[in-house]
Amino acid sequence: MVNLNRRCPSGIVGLDELIEGGFPRQRSILLSGTCGSGKTTFAVQFLYKGITEYNEPGILISLEQDPRELKEDMAAFGFDLQKEEDQGKLIIIDASLARAGTSRMDSSITSSRMFSEQLAGSRSLMPDEFNIDRILDLVVEDAGRIGAKRVALDSLPALEFLMGNQNETEMRHSIRQLLISINYRLKNAGLTTMLITEIPEEGPRISSAHGVESYVADGAINMYYTTMGMESGRNMIIRKMRGTAHSEDVHPLAFKRGVGIQVMKHV
Amino acid sequence: MVNLNRRCPSGIVGLDELIEGGFPRQRSILLSGTCGSGKTTFAVQFLYKGITEYNEPGILISLEQDPRELKEDMAAFGFDLQKEEDQGKLIIIDASLARAGTSRMDSSITSSRMFSEQLAGSRSLMPDEFNIDRILDLVVEDAGRIGAKRVALDSLPALEFLMGNQNETEMRHSIRQLLISINYRLKNAGLTTMLITEIPEEGPRISSAHGVESYVADGAINMYYTTMGMESGRNMIIRKMRGTAHSEDVHPLAFKRGVGIQVMKHV
Amino acid sequence: MVNLNRRCPSGIVGLDELIEGGFPRQRSILLSGTCGSGKTTFAVQFLYKGITEYNEPGILISLEQDPRELKEDMAAFGFDLQKEEDQGKLIIIDASLARAGTSRMDSSITSSRMFSEQLAGSRSLMPDEFNIDRILDLVVEDAGRIGAKRVALDSLPALEFLMGNQNETEMRHSIRQLLISINYRLKNAGLTTMLITEIPEEGPRISSAHGVESYVADGAINMYYTTMGMESGRNMIIRKMRGTAHSEDVHPLAFKRGVGIQVMKHV
Amino acid sequence: MVNLNRRCPSGIVGLDELIEGGFPRQRSILLSGTCGSGKTTFAVQFLYKGITEYNEPGILISLEQDPRELKEDMAAFGFDLQKEEDQGKLIIIDASLARAGTSRMDSSITSSRMFSEQLAGSRSLMPDEFNIDRILDLVVEDAGRIGAKRVALDSLPALEFLMGNQNETEMRHSIRQLLISINYRLKNAGLTTMLITEIPEEGPRISSAHGVESYVADGAINMYYTTMGMESGRNMIIRKMRGTAHSEDVHPLAFKRGVGIQVMKHV
Amino acid sequence: MVNLNRRCPSGIVGLDELIEGGFPRQRSILLSGTCGSGKTTFAVQFLYKGITEYNEPGILISLEQDPRELKEDMAAFGFDLQKEEDQGKLIIIDASLARAGTSRMDSSITSSRMFSEQLAGSRSLMPDEFNIDRILDLVVEDAGRIGAKRVALDSLPALEFLMGNQNETEMRHSIRQLLISINYRLKNAGLTTMLITEIPEEGPRISSAHGVESYVADGAINMYYTTMGMESGRNMIIRKMRGTAHSEDVHPLAFKRGVGIQVMKHV
Amino acid sequence: MVNLNRRCPSGIVGLDELIEGGFPRQRSILLSGTCGSGKTTFAVQFLYKGITEYNEPGILISLEQDPRELKEDMAAFGFDLQKEEDQGKLIIIDASLARAGTSRMDSSITSSRMFSEQLAGSRSLMPDEFNIDRILDLVVEDAGRIGAKRVALDSLPALEFLMGNQNETEMRHSIRQLLISINYRLKNAGLTTMLITEIPEEGPRISSAHGVESYVADGAINMYYTTMGMESGRNMIIRKMRGTAHSEDVHPLAFKRGVGIQVMKHV
Repeated sequence: MVNLNRRCPSGIVGLDELIEGGFPRQRSILLSGTCGSGKTTFAVQFLYKGITEYNEPGILISLEQDPRELKEDMAAFGFDLQKEEDQGKLIIIDASLARAGTSRMDSSITSSRMFSEQLAGSRSLMPDEFNIDRILDLVVEDAGRIGAKRVALDSLPALEFLMGNQNETEMRHSIRQLLISINYRLKNAGLTTMLITEIPEEGPRISSAHGVESYVADGAINMYYTTMGMESGRNMIIRKMRGTAHSEDVHPLAFKRGVGIQVMKHV
Repeated sequence: MVNLNRRCPSGIVGLDELIEGGFPRQRSILLSGTCGSGKTTFAVQFLYKGITEYNEPGILISLEQDPRELKEDMAAFGFDLQKEEDQGKLIIIDASLARAGTSRMDSSITSSRMFSEQLAGSRSLMPDEFNIDRILDLVVEDAGRIGAKRVALDSLPALEFLMGNQNETEMRHSIRQLLISINYRLKNAGLTTMLITEIPEEGPRISSAHGVESYVADGAINMYYTTMGMESGRNMIIRKMRGTAHSEDVHPLAFKRGVGIQVMKHV
Repeated sequence: MVNLNRRCPSGIVGLDELIEGGFPRQRSILLSGTCGSGKTTFAVQFLYKGITEYNEPGILISLEQDPRELKEDMAAFGFDLQKEEDQGKLIIIDASLARAGTSRMDSSITSSRMFSEQLAGSRSLMPDEFNIDRILDLVVEDAGRIGAKRVALDSLPALEFLMGNQNETEMRHSIRQLLISINYRLKNAGLTTMLITEIPEEGPRISSAHGVESYVADGAINMYYTTMGMESGRNMIIRKMRGTAHSEDVHPLAFKRGVGIQVMKHV
Repeated sequence: MVNLNRRCPSGIVGLDELIEGGFPRQRSILLSGTCGSGKTTFAVQFLYKGITEYNEPGILISLEQDPRELKEDMAAFGFDLQKEEDQGKLIIIDASLARAGTSRMDSSITSSRMFSEQLAGSRSLMPDEFNIDRILDLVVEDAGRIGAKRVALDSLPALEFLMGNQNETEMRHSIRQLLISINYRLKNAGLTTMLITEIPEEGPRISSAHGVESYVADGAINMYYTTMGMESGRNMIIRKMRGTAHSEDVHPLAFKRGVGIQVMKHV
Repeated sequence: MVNLNRRCPSGIVGLDELIEGGFPRQRSILLSGTCGSGKTTFAVQFLYKGITEYNEPGILISLEQDPRELKEDMAAFGFDLQKEEDQGKLIIIDASLARAGTSRMDSSITSSRMFSEQLAGSRSLMPDEFNIDRILDLVVEDAGRIGAKRVALDSLPALEFLMGNQNETEMRHSIRQLLISINYRLKNAGLTTMLITEIPEEGPRISSAHGVESYVADGAINMYYTTMGMESGRNMIIRKMRGTAHSEDVHPLAFKRGVGIQVMKHV
Repeated sequence: MVNLNRRCPSGIVGLDELIEGGFPRQRSILLSGTCGSGKTTFAVQFLYKGITEYNEPGILISLEQDPRELKEDMAAFGFDLQKEEDQGKLIIIDASLARAGTSRMDSSITSSRMFSEQLAGSRSLMPDEFNIDRILDLVVEDAGRIGAKRVALDSLPALEFLMGNQNETEMRHSIRQLLISINYRLKNAGLTTMLITEIPEEGPRISSAHGVESYVADGAINMYYTTMGMESGRNMIIRKMRGTAHSEDVHPLAFKRGVGIQVMKHV
């Protein structure tokens, strides 16, 4: 019998039985994967199933994709994000537009769009609001307001984009500091956190771009393609899960319309 | 039954059935491939079949090759680009000459050539016109004029050439900003966008040169050679297609005179 | 019959018989491993079993993880760290909070927490106390007070984080100097030392990040994942153990709830 | 039946049938290969057979080797370059001596040598003449004079040597600009161009040193060694040939005294 | 019959028969190996067996390890270094403490220790004495005094540590100069020299860290681990031995208590 | 029947039949190999057999090894260099001492040694004489005096050592210029030249350290170790031989006492 005070069910079909019933609560999980491996779907499913199956409201910080496109994409898996937003169970913090720094954006369109979304409880950051401290303030505030238990940040490399020109050593230093800060504030707000990162190479072995992300995380899951001859597929491996006896094997992933991601057992 | 409001048929024989009927509309697809993998043919076929089979006008931004040579090459696949240009269905924005910065070019030849092409609706940029904002302005303007639904940019590395001397970190930063900007403007103009990029190594796993191109794209297709002993061939893998249940396998490609590229199923 | 004046039993089931009864006393062992390989569990088990099975008090310098989380995680293996702390057999020097440099931390919470922990004999460093000389002073002082025989430092890469911006050559130089200094002081205090380091790549061959850590250490153990098809597992190899005839083979590791890490013999 | 207005027969036995009868006319072909793969022989054969079998005069720009040594070496394959030079069918532009910048060269020898060669129509550049614009001027002028249809440049890396100290980014930028300029002028002079480049690694996959050469070229052929146990041999792969349905396989090469290079079919 | 005027028996069981009876006299041998491969044991055995079996006194320059620890470790192989020191057959030059530059060392302890060791003929350098010229002076002086025929330096990378911050090119230059200087002086003093270096990667192919060490050496022996599945072991290959017909094969090594290193023949 | 005016027999048993009777005369051969592959022996054998079997005097430029040690080592293969020096058939230019820049050398010893060697016709450079122009002057002068037909330079990387601190790009540029200059002067003096270079990695494919050496050379031979399980051996491959139909296979090498290097045929 899983103790839901200590474990946070992942919402990914087949995963919880590999990690003693769910992620450890109030900890952070690093979700790394290569291009197209399904990271965003994984994180959104974690939030969406949290709401619909465990009644745990959630927050999505979208640094990559426009929320309208995201909702469209997620509909294919049967995740109705708009509905949960409307019911105040889901908040999407849209930092995707702000980071563009596009000077040509039609301000009238932007304003009206922000208005409609604020009605629904979600937020679109203005360009000058965009910094990680501001975002963390919003998350903590919103989490208190809707009683959120889960948060996902998509993605860490977009933060790198905000840091301007730094050499690799500076970057590693900054990212470590940033992660410690994110971790500290979100855990203290009672949230179980999922941090998405993109990695350049395939394979079960690499779990972060700067080699520092995984130090800070309590768990690390890696998603990647394997190719054998002409057949190819997506897999997952649990690299780290503190305080948890976890599967060490490679598990194939299935992406099903109307269902989402399913973790398979290999034969 | 494919919903053509949501899906944009690719025009590549055998591809649409692997991606639920076509690319997602008003999204951007990153087409990466190594030298000689057939990227330009793929992108031109996307535009040409869009015009001839789905009556969707298109725009080609050619940063690499002289349009006259391109038309000659494409005739081998049975694509009569001149005819579609003459009928106002296709616009080629020629930025290939401009980027050379060749001081020795005979200006009389250049002028007459530009004149004849402007009659046909296409454009040859003057050296001092060459910057991405100017090109995007032209695309948006032309797209409105001919009712274009598709655009292809050949290729992203040529943009890098325009950015002058930057170190790798600056370059990555600049390219990300550029891509966000291209994406924002072309999607807002109602266009489904194909962005070509060249990658140095073979294999199904690498999909961009700077590691940032694929963040911004909604889809990512990779074309590459494989060599087994003395036999070699071209293949394609769909690495990413947001909101789409897509094939994860490697698919051989056939290049047929008078037909174009055909995606094969492996046995 | 093992001479306990010369050998320090590891506390890891199955390991001592591979190294002539235990680590050489008053020497330093470098424990390297990739993300999720179980390094922290290994080091804590070394300390915990030292206390409960050999009555040798120990000190843990935690530069990575919050001690409260660590205790929670270790409980899964049946290690009751709080109890040993309460009985004055274990001291945890918490430098994990201090290194964050988080300006937003609620100072009242921090203070009360430090108070309660100091009662139990453990210490939480204040941000301005954080430097390696200060930590070494504390270790030597505490070791004398509780009669400690063992110390573990988790982890070396966190020290790198404290050194600020240095290029790779400077870093290598600084780390070497630091390690010589750590080694000198801890050995002179009569302690057998375990130093944890994280390495980026998998495999039996790499045992340090900067290539200098292993020079200074008297022993080197490497923990890593291997993947064969879909099956994966954790392994250990003893790379170096001065003055000791040691196993040169790769040994699988089992992580058992209520037991801890067990070194297996391969068949 | 090959249309000789559109295709330019390669002169390499067995190659034309793999590329629809010959190279596309007035285009540029990048010939890349590792040390000793036979690039110079390939390019000289292209020119020599052009003269002797298709009556198409040619120009060789030799940046690497002294023309006298080259003639000696080529005689082994039965190519009598001196004879074609004497009949005004072949012009060799010798930039090999000039690039040495050797201050110790006996000027009297140099002068007399230049005199005798100028009688034969070929040219030896003086050190202060050596720059690519000067060379292109000469090629265009000479091509008009003898009605040349083909030109080969041996080799691109020697141009790099002339550019002085530049970092890799600057170099890539300069080479791209240079190639666009070479391409533009030689095509406009009605020439089919072969550009030789040397690459450091073996294998069918790499086709240029800076990763920019192949963008500009209309065709790309790669020559390389393969080693299997103790047997080794030279091979060729056609990586790219615009507007041409070309073989995608690896083809062994035979180097025959009195014949030249022959492309084999694998069984 | 080995000519002991020309060959210097190695003292390693099974090695001399692979190198025509021993190392060439008054030459330098580079002993490279990865972490834990047994380099120090090899070098000490060379000196110890030289004394006990061939009556050739020796000198050990220890830049890495404290001589007291070293003696302890070597006792496991039955090498009683203290006894040979006491009899004036072995001198250990301890530069291990000096290089730490530890400001906290208790000066009274250091002084008394140095006193006792100087009685035994060995030396502990003071921090301000530490430079390679000073060490070479001591070796030459001591060699004359005890009639030493052999010297071992453990290890070259520790010298790098003394050179302060240099970039890779400067370092390579400095190390080459240093090695030529070491070589020149030790050979002139009639010594056969063994230089230890640590290399990062496993395998028979790499024999130095900077790629310059092996130029200067007259012989090069590489020690490394190989892993096959779960079994692992140490091996040796003779890469170079000037003026000597040597084995080119890989030879397994056995490390035996009371015996030392033994070179095995593979079956 | 080999034309000795055009071919220069190599003196290596079994090699000439693989290269049409010998190296092309008055050309330069790049001999590359890894540590211990036998490069110096190969080059000395080329000179020694030239003298004893073809009556062609030769010159050795030794930048690496002390000539006295070299003579000792070569005696193992039955090459009596001293005898040929005494008969004025061989000149060794010793630049090995000069490059050390050792300030501690006993000047009296050096002087007397130089005197005795000058009697024998060979030369030891003084430190301030050491530069490549001075060496080339000496070679040309000596070649005229003794009628030398062959010269070997051991080795190119030692030249790099003389160039002081340069970055990789500058170094590549300098080395290319240097090689062109060496080539030009030695060929003009009627010499067939062998240039030795050391390369870091094993394998048939790499033939120079900077990637520029092989451009300038007319031939390129690579010597390297291969390891299969526990057996290892030295091999040779002819990578390039201008104007020569040469073997493309890998050939094992045997090093025989009293004979020298022998090229084997594989079965």
